[in-house]
Amino acid sequence: MDNQIVIAGPTSQRLGLKVANLLHTRVVTTENKVFPDGEGYLRIDIEEEAEFEGKDIIIIQSLGANSTGDQNLHIMELIMMIGAAKRMKASKIRVVVPYFAYSRQDKAFRPGECIFAEEILKWIEIAGATEFYTIDVHAEKIFEILKIPAYNLDPMEILAKELAKKCEDPIVICPDKGAYERSRKFAGYLGKNVQVIQFIKKRDVKTGKITMEGDLPIQGKDVIIADDIIASGGTMAKAIKIVKTAGAKSIYSVGTHPLMLKNAVFNLMKAGVTDIIGTDTIDSAFMQVSIAEVISKAIHSKSP
Amino acid sequence: MDNQIVIAGPTSQRLGLKVANLLHTRVVTTENKVFPDGEGYLRIDIEEEAEFEGKDIIIIQSLGANSTGDQNLHIMELIMMIGAAKRMKASKIRVVVPYFAYSRQDKAFRPGECIFAEEILKWIEIAGATEFYTIDVHAEKIFEILKIPAYNLDPMEILAKELAKKCEDPIVICPDKGAYERSRKFAGYLGKNVQVIQFIKKRDVKTGKITMEGDLPIQGKDVIIADDIIASGGTMAKAIKIVKTAGAKSIYSVGTHPLMLKNAVFNLMKAGVTDIIGTDTIDSAFMQVSIAEVISKAIHSKSP
Amino acid sequence: MDNQIVIAGPTSQRLGLKVANLLHTRVVTTENKVFPDGEGYLRIDIEEEAEFEGKDIIIIQSLGANSTGDQNLHIMELIMMIGAAKRMKASKIRVVVPYFAYSRQDKAFRPGECIFAEEILKWIEIAGATEFYTIDVHAEKIFEILKIPAYNLDPMEILAKELAKKCEDPIVICPDKGAYERSRKFAGYLGKNVQVIQFIKKRDVKTGKITMEGDLPIQGKDVIIADDIIASGGTMAKAIKIVKTAGAKSIYSVGTHPLMLKNAVFNLMKAGVTDIIGTDTIDSAFMQVSIAEVISKAIHSKSP
Amino acid sequence: MDNQIVIAGPTSQRLGLKVANLLHTRVVTTENKVFPDGEGYLRIDIEEEAEFEGKDIIIIQSLGANSTGDQNLHIMELIMMIGAAKRMKASKIRVVVPYFAYSRQDKAFRPGECIFAEEILKWIEIAGATEFYTIDVHAEKIFEILKIPAYNLDPMEILAKELAKKCEDPIVICPDKGAYERSRKFAGYLGKNVQVIQFIKKRDVKTGKITMEGDLPIQGKDVIIADDIIASGGTMAKAIKIVKTAGAKSIYSVGTHPLMLKNAVFNLMKAGVTDIIGTDTIDSAFMQVSIAEVISKAIHSKSP
Repeated sequence: MDNQIVIAGPTSQRLGLKVANLLHTRVVTTENKVFPDGEGYLRIDIEEEAEFEGKDIIIIQSLGANSTGDQNLHIMELIMMIGAAKRMKASKIRVVVPYFAYSRQDKAFRPGECIFAEEILKWIEIAGATEFYTIDVHAEKIFEILKIPAYNLDPMEILAKELAKKCEDPIVICPDKGAYERSRKFAGYLGKNVQVIQFIKKRDVKTGKITMEGDLPIQGKDVIIADDIIASGGTMAKAIKIVKTAGAKSIYSVGTHPLMLKNAVFNLMKAGVTDIIGTDTIDSAFMQVSIAEVISKAIHSKSP
Repeated sequence: MDNQIVIAGPTSQRLGLKVANLLHTRVVTTENKVFPDGEGYLRIDIEEEAEFEGKDIIIIQSLGANSTGDQNLHIMELIMMIGAAKRMKASKIRVVVPYFAYSRQDKAFRPGECIFAEEILKWIEIAGATEFYTIDVHAEKIFEILKIPAYNLDPMEILAKELAKKCEDPIVICPDKGAYERSRKFAGYLGKNVQVIQFIKKRDVKTGKITMEGDLPIQGKDVIIADDIIASGGTMAKAIKIVKTAGAKSIYSVGTHPLMLKNAVFNLMKAGVTDIIGTDTIDSAFMQVSIAEVISKAIHSKSP
Repeated sequence: MDNQIVIAGPTSQRLGLKVANLLHTRVVTTENKVFPDGEGYLRIDIEEEAEFEGKDIIIIQSLGANSTGDQNLHIMELIMMIGAAKRMKASKIRVVVPYFAYSRQDKAFRPGECIFAEEILKWIEIAGATEFYTIDVHAEKIFEILKIPAYNLDPMEILAKELAKKCEDPIVICPDKGAYERSRKFAGYLGKNVQVIQFIKKRDVKTGKITMEGDLPIQGKDVIIADDIIASGGTMAKAIKIVKTAGAKSIYSVGTHPLMLKNAVFNLMKAGVTDIIGTDTIDSAFMQVSIAEVISKAIHSKSP
Repeated sequence: MDNQIVIAGPTSQRLGLKVANLLHTRVVTTENKVFPDGEGYLRIDIEEEAEFEGKDIIIIQSLGANSTGDQNLHIMELIMMIGAAKRMKASKIRVVVPYFAYSRQDKAFRPGECIFAEEILKWIEIAGATEFYTIDVHAEKIFEILKIPAYNLDPMEILAKELAKKCEDPIVICPDKGAYERSRKFAGYLGKNVQVIQFIKKRDVKTGKITMEGDLPIQGKDVIIADDIIASGGTMAKAIKIVKTAGAKSIYSVGTHPLMLKNAVFNLMKAGVTDIIGTDTIDSAFMQVSIAEVISKAIHSKSP
């Protein structure tokens, strides 16, 4: 669209370009650096500020850490883009944060804590965002703090499409009680009859060994374990080991946001995972599925 | 005061305690860390959230980089303190930022830039601050973005008091055109008759050498060069060299916020500085003067 | 081999496991963290130190920055692994550094500089390495500092194999004078008759525009531009633009070590690259080709 | 001395200059930065490499973290200085590391660990150091790995001199069993009759409360608690509280290397410390005593 400009933020250069291509819009990048004293700097790489006046600006910036900066820097860069777009009189500022850092700080667990995920949203709003988009956020409840429209986009359908290519006889395993709803939904995308098995952890008091309840009908099956974030992958690795022993044909770890902290990669692979499948909400070695289409469709459907 | 609690933020533990002592208030600290994925964490170290209800909370947190974190982390920590205080129903949240990072990003110098100092202020306000205090900020103009009262406290009087002890026959040198007003004011604190010499840089086109205009009546004088921030100290070092050659008895570099980047310490000392005098807006080797009293007086005067 | 153990270092977990699989050896990982004061910590994750006695240890650790640490930390971790293996009386310690950081500090360009790449090699040796392997190092000359055998493994054959799948009518473009030898060699792997075109940069003195000499017979061709490292990708992006205009059918950027600094991804994609193809010497979104086989073959051929 | 040149490393600019002044030698600094990809850079700031030929070079570089870099970067910078000095044919390279990072990794505590402090020493030696000096190292035993002479300089005498000014009736408290020897020695510097009280921690099994054995004859005394490193200051803070309750007139925390991690400053002050006294082995707010003289004397006494 003529009226739209996509800004491919420093952390989402590839995704930003893909979205712009799908939307058939102009795309610009940024000039950014860190000063010797540690302060970040960013400017949107345009020649005339008038280029932004009255425009529908779409900012795409993941907040995950990468090799050149941490989450905090990437939040600063995001606000710098929003603030600049507002100052230059954009008419709409749509902020797309594919991976929303600090999303697990969504509650006060102990006295004196802050619900920091909400504070970041408040900053995005007060800086000038007119719409907010993210993918598969840890707890959607934090959106209630916002006055502007907020959308939590669902990557499960495209992830399921990719897995359907790899799995003949899929079954979904849910190793974490809290993830059952999510697993159920994911199975639905894979097919009407795809089963979900709730993994009931039982810890042997003496040995500490974890076992699974009941019969595991996974002999010869393609097992899928899906979650929003793969962090250190501890629980997932244990599930993989058990499923492997039980005779699974193949085992896929699926994470929308594959952070892969500490020894996550080693542990999942050592446990016997067939493949680790993530999206490009964070640039990583595991971004087998692009959420560009999900984003462009959402943007398009909300455009006048 | 019974109704007040000071939070000594991670970067201002000493200053926070000093202010609390001067105000005769309770003081609490925080528990803070960085998770392995790079996200910061902070909670105010209290046992019951009810302790904050209806209280007048004073948060003291410098935003300078230190050995355990950069400016960005310290901004996150500040917001975590404000957000927690608000959630716990403090009646007032007074935010004291002794050194305000990013304060030099106070204008859009090139197309596509953000006035980022303003965005940080907006975050502090939206998170819940009811008053804002800082010391000797680079450009007070950024306060206009705020709806809450904002105070730019002046450390010059206490710095001048310290210098008066060391200097018998002081004279103020201003090596930077933009700092004349400030130097003039500083001289006023030192004494009615203390002279200010505007240093007129002249660059020899061929040699690039910088010289000073006119006679320099500094033979035997105690020279003072004062600025808000000492960053890499380049201009200051040049001024010191010239003043030294001209026969100054002693030379003092005074900076409210002595960042001392790159080789600043080496360059000032090599040039012949007698001493470098800063405040405790940033914990450093140069914090010879405490601004605790300046802060406590300001807090006190704004208290009902 | 029974006598061998592979250590998959923190930065090369996936590659380490792959190499171990190919060598049919045991593989172990590490436990690692950063203390709150900033010091790194690593231990090889084994139960009994006797497990290492007399063994042929193969350590695999890339030195590139990633989301959880910089080059310096990864060098420390490497030495921690070597030092531990030596202390535990390994009989051989083969150090595989897929991407060797600081490799461009291979000469003293200005007075007072250190040839730091050599110093790192000296550390690896004195810590206990008995053999050194790396991939496509920037300047092999630095190996002369070593007394132990050092091998610079060549990834071009496997990269060429991957490209052969994608290109019907390949031609190699060399945008950088210094890379001609390398480009020539790369073309050789692609086929006997694959042409190399030396891109002669001509800068218009007035406009600064860069043009290419002579006819460019690339209409309808699959253009390949290959280098050891893709850093900020500036020269490559310019070459892509010109080649695109000249009518190339497809354009592939090939980098053994795709660092993709600053706006490299944006710039290459915006210029019109068809795909960016790198190896897993660094875990990244561009690791389309694994050098596991190259490493395992080299290790195998040097094993008794 | 004409034959000597001091290099004031990036982390020890002030201390380096002081030492050079005391030795009456030439002093040079460095040019250093971090590249956008995270690699460090340093060159010794000289014009002609011949200036170093045949010279006795004294490199002074603390390895503590500071606001512009972590321990790892500072180790790299140190090696860059040594390597450059060696390449430029210095005849002697004396390396002075006022605070030696990683010094607590001086043993293998668990299987698979490396004695990393030794590895750093080996690097310093192989890079070209001909002598090694440090101050109050955590465990001198690590020096055995070196072939070059190594000196562990003692700051206690000058610290005691400073404390003698502040204390009329001093007594030394030793809260940590392992620090008794050190405390005994420190008391000796304070005066022949200065007592040392070994603090015997007794933990009440039920309440977890820590108490002290026997009578505490510290009513009206000036209590001194001294250690090599003050890290998070937990044990020290507990000791201060008890001593305070027992009626001490004043309480001094003395640390050669005041790292002051986490809430150390808050905790010591809150517990009732009168002052925290450290040296300039690390640039900090607590460097009340300079070890420049200790270093210059040691250098001088080892000079021909």
